[in-house]
Amino acid sequence: MNAHVSPVATADPAKQSAEAVDAPALVQRLARAGRAAQRVLASMPSAQRAQALRLAAAALRRAEPEILEANALDVADGIAGGLSSAMVDRLRLDPARIEAIAAAVEQVATLDDPVGQIIDETRPPNGLVLRRVRVPIGLIGIIYESRPNVTADAAVLCVRSGNAALLRGGSEAARSNRAIHKALVQGLVEGGVPAEAVQLMPTQDRAAVGAMLAAAGLIDMIIPRGGKSLVARVQADARVPVLAHLDGINHTFIDRSANPAMAKDIAFNAKMRRTGICGSMETLLVDAQFSDPHGLVAPLLEAGCELRGDARACAIDPRIKPADPSDWDTEYLDAVLSVAVVDGLDGALAHIARHASGHTDAIVTDDEDVAARFLSEVDSAIVIHNASSQFADGGEFGLGAEIGIATGRLHARGPVALEGLTTYKWLVLGSGQIRP
Amino acid sequence: MNAHVSPVATADPAKQSAEAVDAPALVQRLARAGRAAQRVLASMPSAQRAQALRLAAAALRRAEPEILEANALDVADGIAGGLSSAMVDRLRLDPARIEAIAAAVEQVATLDDPVGQIIDETRPPNGLVLRRVRVPIGLIGIIYESRPNVTADAAVLCVRSGNAALLRGGSEAARSNRAIHKALVQGLVEGGVPAEAVQLMPTQDRAAVGAMLAAAGLIDMIIPRGGKSLVARVQADARVPVLAHLDGINHTFIDRSANPAMAKDIAFNAKMRRTGICGSMETLLVDAQFSDPHGLVAPLLEAGCELRGDARACAIDPRIKPADPSDWDTEYLDAVLSVAVVDGLDGALAHIARHASGHTDAIVTDDEDVAARFLSEVDSAIVIHNASSQFADGGEFGLGAEIGIATGRLHARGPVALEGLTTYKWLVLGSGQIRP
Repeated sequence: MNAHVSPVATADPAKQSAEAVDAPALVQRLARAGRAAQRVLASMPSAQRAQALRLAAAALRRAEPEILEANALDVADGIAGGLSSAMVDRLRLDPARIEAIAAAVEQVATLDDPVGQIIDETRPPNGLVLRRVRVPIGLIGIIYESRPNVTADAAVLCVRSGNAALLRGGSEAARSNRAIHKALVQGLVEGGVPAEAVQLMPTQDRAAVGAMLAAAGLIDMIIPRGGKSLVARVQADARVPVLAHLDGINHTFIDRSANPAMAKDIAFNAKMRRTGICGSMETLLVDAQFSDPHGLVAPLLEAGCELRGDARACAIDPRIKPADPSDWDTEYLDAVLSVAVVDGLDGALAHIARHASGHTDAIVTDDEDVAARFLSEVDSAIVIHNASSQFADGGEFGLGAEIGIATGRLHARGPVALEGLTTYKWLVLGSGQIRP
Repeated sequence: MNAHVSPVATADPAKQSAEAVDAPALVQRLARAGRAAQRVLASMPSAQRAQALRLAAAALRRAEPEILEANALDVADGIAGGLSSAMVDRLRLDPARIEAIAAAVEQVATLDDPVGQIIDETRPPNGLVLRRVRVPIGLIGIIYESRPNVTADAAVLCVRSGNAALLRGGSEAARSNRAIHKALVQGLVEGGVPAEAVQLMPTQDRAAVGAMLAAAGLIDMIIPRGGKSLVARVQADARVPVLAHLDGINHTFIDRSANPAMAKDIAFNAKMRRTGICGSMETLLVDAQFSDPHGLVAPLLEAGCELRGDARACAIDPRIKPADPSDWDTEYLDAVLSVAVVDGLDGALAHIARHASGHTDAIVTDDEDVAARFLSEVDSAIVIHNASSQFADGGEFGLGAEIGIATGRLHARGPVALEGLTTYKWLVLGSGQIRP
């Protein structure tokens, strides 16, 4: 059983039933129902799916009192159980947050539907017409932690792209998730979507998570949303393909020909705008020939950022502390930054090849040849020239909404939105051809 | 140790070293070398990679005597060890087969290089230019059985698309594989490709296969090429993403409005052209209202195909035997066919949803509305209207050469060629933007 199950859990019918759960059988039953609903969903016109999302947004707004009531119980239990204040903040809903969830649902309804898009069409010499069209992936499992908004955010991206969702949220938010799920499904059903298109795992038993991860052939893809330990566990144990975000050890390289003012602004923004997001810079690489290294680090130090440098970096300013070797491989997600002085582009590329996590790496330079080599040779999901790494975000990329940022190499890379929730099939249009 | 290791194995230095192999360490060493070589390969101009392939083809032709000599030893051992004649046939090389291998290598050199292709370019309101460009996946592991031609075929598709390959062939073909690999690498190195871009596992120890499957983060993708038991083992054990082909339980549905002559020709070709390929039809679905069911089955029966039918199908011709329930889920890969009479399109769709393996399913109909619904609702990698399912092939699809047919849903589906060996990265081109 989940260690976070609260003392009142057994008073709750949904949790009570967890006591005797046969997790693989439960996941099989839910997955079959989800797959059947997905077929119906996929055959609905796109406009109808969009309209169902608008009805779901309205249902969420109507259910505000019930959602707040459920959330208050979760928050009270969380505080009594000793949740950190950061966790309680993630968990807590208020009318503004519920409105934001509903507005996000409506916004997804406005996004272009990728389903049915023709990727390409060819006519080989055999006379056939071949067309690749985007289709939904099928049943997506979403495993997340304490943020109850994921219940709506992830589910509606799935529905918009014709996929069914099987949600398993954190036990801290169990009542909030049930209330949001109930409203969401009510609206979707009003719009003609089968209720089983979005299912919430009815138990917090951790065995159900294990059964989801093992459900190859029943669940088509799993997306973990949460901290690194959750993601790492899902990646290690899953037999189902996983679309996940792991580390963001992101570098910004200030080339000798960078405009010093631009370099200073980009470095400061990349680290300090928000230190806790995956696109924040964790290592600053400074070309030994860059004209104003002190102008680069001074604003960071003055803003309270701790800098850890190699020997040459420590010589820039006495406030820079010596880095430990492990610093080059650390994602701080905090006001801490490692700084290395490197010998030009080649030095930067070697450092990045060794230490980057393949998330987002940036260069600041006015030399187009240097930029071109950096863009070509750095093998990360996102490679940036002359902009802050904090732009690594589906919204900033114009994708509307993202289900996550993928740090794997296959299927989808970087910010993943509706297109990443689709696959394709080949349509072959003949006129009686047989193969010689 | 591999049960197929022949008695002379210990006389062979490459095999001898296998005795004491530390498989994870070996795979780590090979993978690191392969990854380093892949970086060099990826930065080579496309024309140079193509030229290296032409030099590799020439080297293969020059090495014909050595390859035939090595192959003769493998074949002799195989016969002595009791390999089936089908296996010996797959293993055996002759000058024509070596020429075919070399010609296939040259043909891959002529294919369009997907690396560097721009998938799309967008300009969101923040002023950034976003470009998705195709890049190689990285290091691809190929695990295959007794066909030595895979050593060249798979490796050159990897090289053409900027990927390094780590090959592990079957022990029956160990000497042939080494001879082919040696020639191939010789040619590639003449063309400036690092030797480690294509590595052949130096041991037949099965622990090395296990270590490859476990090498998440070192090997980016594994492609098994071989029989179902190999593929199933790889899928079950791999921690690395797998691109694989499993079952091809392919249906052809003859709708009431099908042209009877076209239906007869397509059904016959789909089953009998070659019964052992993955695109061959395994189940024929006949609309109860189709005008000439006997004309459909008679040529198949007369050609020696065994037909196994449901009750209504058995009524078409007394030579049709009653099907067992397991027949509907069986991939015969032989002159055996299950036949069911279904009630129109809905009956066919229900049967396919229940029994298809998601590979290739076809409809024969002159009714465009029925065809449109079939193409939309059948959720298989390849869905065909009015043509034989035996067209399910990368060559017929105009892809030039295929690394395999994928029956999974993510990354690539159906015939996979060079594009399926790439992923993409996002290039973000700014002019000093910081995120507000």
